[in-house]
Amino acid sequence: MVSNKSHERETWIKQLVNPIRNDLLSGAAELALQAINIFQSILSSSDNTQVDSLREDLRFAATELINAQPAMASLFNLANTILTAASKANSVAEIKKECQNALDQFERFLCDSAAKIADIALDLMPPGEMVFAYSFSSTVVSCLLNARARGRYFRVACSESRPSMEGRKLATRLAAGGIEVILTFDSAMAMLLPNCSIAFMGCDAVGSPGLVNKSGSLLLALACHEMKIPLYAFCDSTKIVDDEHVFEFENHQRPGIEVWEDAPPGVTILNRQFELIPFDYITGLVTEKGLFTEHDLAKHISKLSIHQDLQTVSR
Amino acid sequence: MVSNKSHERETWIKQLVNPIRNDLLSGAAELALQAINIFQSILSSSDNTQVDSLREDLRFAATELINAQPAMASLFNLANTILTAASKANSVAEIKKECQNALDQFERFLCDSAAKIADIALDLMPPGEMVFAYSFSSTVVSCLLNARARGRYFRVACSESRPSMEGRKLATRLAAGGIEVILTFDSAMAMLLPNCSIAFMGCDAVGSPGLVNKSGSLLLALACHEMKIPLYAFCDSTKIVDDEHVFEFENHQRPGIEVWEDAPPGVTILNRQFELIPFDYITGLVTEKGLFTEHDLAKHISKLSIHQDLQTVSR
Repeated sequence: MVSNKSHERETWIKQLVNPIRNDLLSGAAELALQAINIFQSILSSSDNTQVDSLREDLRFAATELINAQPAMASLFNLANTILTAASKANSVAEIKKECQNALDQFERFLCDSAAKIADIALDLMPPGEMVFAYSFSSTVVSCLLNARARGRYFRVACSESRPSMEGRKLATRLAAGGIEVILTFDSAMAMLLPNCSIAFMGCDAVGSPGLVNKSGSLLLALACHEMKIPLYAFCDSTKIVDDEHVFEFENHQRPGIEVWEDAPPGVTILNRQFELIPFDYITGLVTEKGLFTEHDLAKHISKLSIHQDLQTVSR
Repeated sequence: MVSNKSHERETWIKQLVNPIRNDLLSGAAELALQAINIFQSILSSSDNTQVDSLREDLRFAATELINAQPAMASLFNLANTILTAASKANSVAEIKKECQNALDQFERFLCDSAAKIADIALDLMPPGEMVFAYSFSSTVVSCLLNARARGRYFRVACSESRPSMEGRKLATRLAAGGIEVILTFDSAMAMLLPNCSIAFMGCDAVGSPGLVNKSGSLLLALACHEMKIPLYAFCDSTKIVDDEHVFEFENHQRPGIEVWEDAPPGVTILNRQFELIPFDYITGLVTEKGLFTEHDLAKHISKLSIHQDLQTVSR
């Protein structure tokens, strides 16, 4: 039986997670930073005076976060890191210390990785050319702003990313950073691509079957493949998951009314936000360790260790 | 110097053409039927008592129609047919008679062609399967409704067609005709395609470089090509134009605010509604005479004769 106290805490954690559940505009790295804040709130809450209830709160937050954005591998790996850290300790004080260290390390890793990926991206970008960027990825944005700040001149082509329009967020951020942007609707991306010499996209999860990213990434990849435009996906290693978890994105169905508010009877709306892109259509996977081959990926996946509480999440 | 009388008539003709200029939802065949009505209004107007002023009105309407929808080859060919008919006659009564005959013949041709194409489409459709249909084409709609009326069971997958959303019009018409429809946003079309065994699209113009259709058709064609899904374009021969005129679609740029009302400074919007799809990505071109090869097309183009008043339109 669930006590009142425990029910109250679950409600509180659900409220903390809700903004992440409803966030269709942020990239994976941004969501991971928000999730770090949620774990920090739980750790610093004075209510937790018992080991069991603190562990239960962390476990509950972990599964809520994963279910809120099933495509976001970084959330899964963050949750896994925290539950593993909590397992190592035996008192409330120790759990808080272990988990805080893990959170700090995770956050530092995200920031360092973004900087390393930005260096690699700069080397990939031909000066003076047009770069295609799809959807919204804070990693892609930081790569492009970094290149601009280092005096590299280029233009960016992008599309709006229906239905959430996070392509507009990308365009706004880049334009505010002094980058000239040209935006069109998604189905017209093939019109801009022949003017681009390279294409960049973020990534929400990577596993041996391919990478998961916002819907439309597969069409972009097919078009780049056909037009011989190199397409790079930026992906720090917190995005890597085992084969079982890479398909979690299929659990992320959104309501049809977000696509068409008053569809007539007889018309069913499909509003699936993520899709799988096989590696055959990607030129390279840029991680903080450099370009990853499928062998590098397999090696990384073989070393993943999943906390027992997360082994059946969303299954 | 333009007389007041002539100025008044030009204003009247512009008003007749305006609905076509602003119509982003209708397919090529629908627009051609509307254009037939405009020529009919001019012919039946009692103001025209002089050969020269009647010819001038027809010429003015012809160029206005072509400039209103430069991608629509049927409008060009209708205008060409009418000006050619008007050239053959020497009195107001004869011009009216010749032009009326030409209009009747053109309309009958459109209707007969749609019926013949629908017969061919029925043979192409595998029973019980899902058909992908893109954008809005009254020819595609009539093919699908005809197949349903003949007891063929199938489902249709489509996408919304930003920014004008004419895919919703397609979905609404088909659902009203008892066809089960599944609709998604444009960038997610690659998610529905693996469930489809065939794809159909309309066509606004065809020439030896390829066919012109609504933006997004090239992405659809690339995806179908890669996924080995046969893609047929439906195109009666009023859509065929010479090489010089097939690129008229490039003159059809729409205002950027139709895509993004309040784009920030530094962001340029591209709102181009049509694009060229090379024949390499199309399985077949279905005309009223059956499947057209590139040889059939070249032969048809070689016989086209363009009225002198239209030889430099939009050039």
